[in-house]
Amino acid sequence: MQPIYLDHAATTPVRPEVREAMLPWLGDRFGNPSSSHRWGREARAALEEARERVAAVLGARRSEILFTACGTESDNLAILGRVHAHDEPRAVVCSAIEHKAVLMAAKQAHREGVPMVLLGVDTDGRVDVDALDEAIALRPCVVSVMWGNNEVGTLQPVRELAERCRARDVTFHSDAVQAFGKVRIRVDDVPCDLLALGAHKFGGPKGVGVLYIRDGVRLAPLQFGGGQEHQLRPGTESVADAVAFATAMELAAAEQAAETRRLARLRDAIERGLCAGVPGLTVNGAGADRLPHITNVSVPGVDQDALVVALDLAGFAVSVASACQSGATQPSHVLAAMGRIIEGAASIRVSVGRTTTDEQARRAAVEIPGVVARVRAAA
Amino acid sequence: MQPIYLDHAATTPVRPEVREAMLPWLGDRFGNPSSSHRWGREARAALEEARERVAAVLGARRSEILFTACGTESDNLAILGRVHAHDEPRAVVCSAIEHKAVLMAAKQAHREGVPMVLLGVDTDGRVDVDALDEAIALRPCVVSVMWGNNEVGTLQPVRELAERCRARDVTFHSDAVQAFGKVRIRVDDVPCDLLALGAHKFGGPKGVGVLYIRDGVRLAPLQFGGGQEHQLRPGTESVADAVAFATAMELAAAEQAAETRRLARLRDAIERGLCAGVPGLTVNGAGADRLPHITNVSVPGVDQDALVVALDLAGFAVSVASACQSGATQPSHVLAAMGRIIEGAASIRVSVGRTTTDEQARRAAVEIPGVVARVRAAA
Repeated sequence: MQPIYLDHAATTPVRPEVREAMLPWLGDRFGNPSSSHRWGREARAALEEARERVAAVLGARRSEILFTACGTESDNLAILGRVHAHDEPRAVVCSAIEHKAVLMAAKQAHREGVPMVLLGVDTDGRVDVDALDEAIALRPCVVSVMWGNNEVGTLQPVRELAERCRARDVTFHSDAVQAFGKVRIRVDDVPCDLLALGAHKFGGPKGVGVLYIRDGVRLAPLQFGGGQEHQLRPGTESVADAVAFATAMELAAAEQAAETRRLARLRDAIERGLCAGVPGLTVNGAGADRLPHITNVSVPGVDQDALVVALDLAGFAVSVASACQSGATQPSHVLAAMGRIIEGAASIRVSVGRTTTDEQARRAAVEIPGVVARVRAAA
Repeated sequence: MQPIYLDHAATTPVRPEVREAMLPWLGDRFGNPSSSHRWGREARAALEEARERVAAVLGARRSEILFTACGTESDNLAILGRVHAHDEPRAVVCSAIEHKAVLMAAKQAHREGVPMVLLGVDTDGRVDVDALDEAIALRPCVVSVMWGNNEVGTLQPVRELAERCRARDVTFHSDAVQAFGKVRIRVDDVPCDLLALGAHKFGGPKGVGVLYIRDGVRLAPLQFGGGQEHQLRPGTESVADAVAFATAMELAAAEQAAETRRLARLRDAIERGLCAGVPGLTVNGAGADRLPHITNVSVPGVDQDALVVALDLAGFAVSVASACQSGATQPSHVLAAMGRIIEGAASIRVSVGRTTTDEQARRAAVEIPGVVARVRAAA
C-alpha cells in the first residue's frame, strides 16, 4: 500500500503550477535584480511584479512586502527588528504558544535586556484578550500573537487583539505561517502591522518567506550588506523564489474558501475515527475555533516516539508536536501552556492538505486506531 | 544581434545539471528534514549528503558546513556571530575593500561598541600583510579578508593571512563568494576558520549560501527558532537548494583549473582590446594577481551611467562596480581604498563566465571601444 502523508502542517508538496512558474527564473532569465542592464531589469521587473501580486492577495501595498528566506526569518525580523529600532528597552509581548521563531526571538530580546511578557492561554489554547490590556500598559515595542497555532490549530482572536493594539498605538505582529491559505487573511481587514508567511506551508518551495510591514512601522535590520529589500534584508534576491511565492499564494487564496471546508471535513472524519476507535483519546483545542487541517490528540498509555514509528511503518506519516521540535525530548510548550501535558500519554498531530483524498482520510480514521491498540498492547 | 552577458561577477545562469538535480526536491520528495517519518528521513538524508559533498570539495568535515540563504548571510554570521559569541567587546578587523556584507556587518559591530579596524590596501588592492600584525595585537574576535575582490578581482594573500592568524590563535574568516570556482579553495590547504560561499556566483540558484565553520570555532546565532543547522540557523532547510549548491560546487571545482585558464584568456583578450582601443583607459588591479574572470577599467572623460546604458543598448551587459552597489551615487569604496578614484572618469567591471564564448570576447574587445568613443564624443 502507498504510504499516506498526513503531516501537511510540517510542509507541503510544491504545486506543479508553482514549479512551472519558477523554471524560467532558474533558466535563461537569470539576471541579478540589482543590475542595471537588460538581464537585471528583467529580473527586477519580475521581482516587483511578484511583490505586487503578494501585496494584492493580502490587501497591502507593494512597498509593504519584504521577501525573506523563511517564516522564521520573517518572525525574527518582526520581533528583533522592532526591539532594535528603539534605543531604550521596550517590552516584547507574545503568547505562550507562539512558534519557536517568535518565542526564541523574544527570549533573545530578553537576554538583551528587554522585558518579555508571555500571555497565557486557556485549556483550548486561546489567548485571554483582557490580559493584553495589562501588557499594553507597559508600552511594548511589539505584541505578537500567531494567527493559528501550528501544533493544535487553535485560532486566535487576532482581529480583536490587533484592534486593541491599534487603539493604543502599539505595533501588532501575527505569525500567519501555518494559517495562510487555511483561513482568510487580509491586512486591509484585520489591522496587523506585521505579518509573517512562509511559502512551503501552502504549496511553495522551502527557502522563501514574506514579512508584511505596514507603511510607517519602523524596523531595524538583522543583517547588513547591500541595500536590497528596502535596506532591511540584504543579499541578492531570488527571483525564482519570489515568483514561486506569489504563484503559490494566489492559488492558495483563490481556493481557500472551498479548501477550508474540504480540509475540515477530512480532518473531522479522521478525528471522529480516532475518538471512536481509541479509548481515552482526547482532542487538544477541540473547544476552540481551529485551523481546518490540524488535529492534535493525546493518547494515554502509549509511548509517543513508539507510536509515531509504528504509524510510519503502517504507512501514516504524522508528527509529534511540530516538525521543528521533532527529536526534542522536552514536552510541547504549547500543550504545557494549555495545561494539557498528560504523564505517560502520547500527543500526535495529524494534518491534512491539498493532496489528501477522501480515501486517505477514511483509511486513517479506520486504521490508525488499530495501530494505537497494537502499540498499547506491546507496551 | 544577440546581446552579450559580461556580468558573471554579478550572477551566473543556473547550470542545467543543477536545475535537474533540484527538480525531484521540488516534486515528490518534499519532506521536511526535521520530520521523523519516511518523507522526513528521505529529506534529511539528502540534506546531509549535500552537506557531505560540499565538505568534500572544501576538504572539510560534514559537521563544519552550514547552509544559509546567501553569501551575505554567511558573512554576517561569520562577523556578528563571532562578535556576539563574546561577552566583552573584542575588535573586528577587516580589509577596506571587503564586500558590503562584511563591511556593513563590521560597522554594525562597531555601533554595538566593538572596535573596528580596517586594513588598507595598495593601489592594486592588496592588503598589507604586515599591517595585520599590529591589528592582531588587539586580540580581535575575527579577522576578515576576502579571497578575491568582487569589483577589481585582486586576490589576497589569504594563505599568509590565515597562517599568521592561526599562529596567534585569532579566528580568520574569508569571503570567497566571488572567488570560488575561479581559483582553488580548500580549507585543508589554507587554514581559514570561517569561509563564506554563495551558489549563484558559480552556476547555482540564488537564495542559498554556505558558511564553513571550522570545528571548535564558536559562533552565536543571529536568528532564533527551531534547532536547525546546529542551532545556528533556524528555519526549515531547503533540500532543493542544498542539493543544488552541492551539485554546482562539484561541477565548478572539477572544471576549475581548465576554466580558470580559459576565463583568463577571454578576460585578457577583452582587456587588450580595451587598452588598445580606448585612449587613457587604465586597468584597476592590473599589478596584482587577480581572479581570472574580472577586469575593472577606468575611462576618463566619460559619464559612468551613460556608458553603462550605451553599452547595454549596444548589447553588452557590464556593471558599474558591483551589482549590489548599482544605483548608488557614491563612488566605489574599493576603488577609493585603492586610491583609484579619478574625477570625471567612468569605472566599469567586465566579467566573463562559463557561458562566455571566444566570439563574444572577441566582439567585446572590438566593439566596446567604439561605444566608449561615441559616448565620449556625445559628452
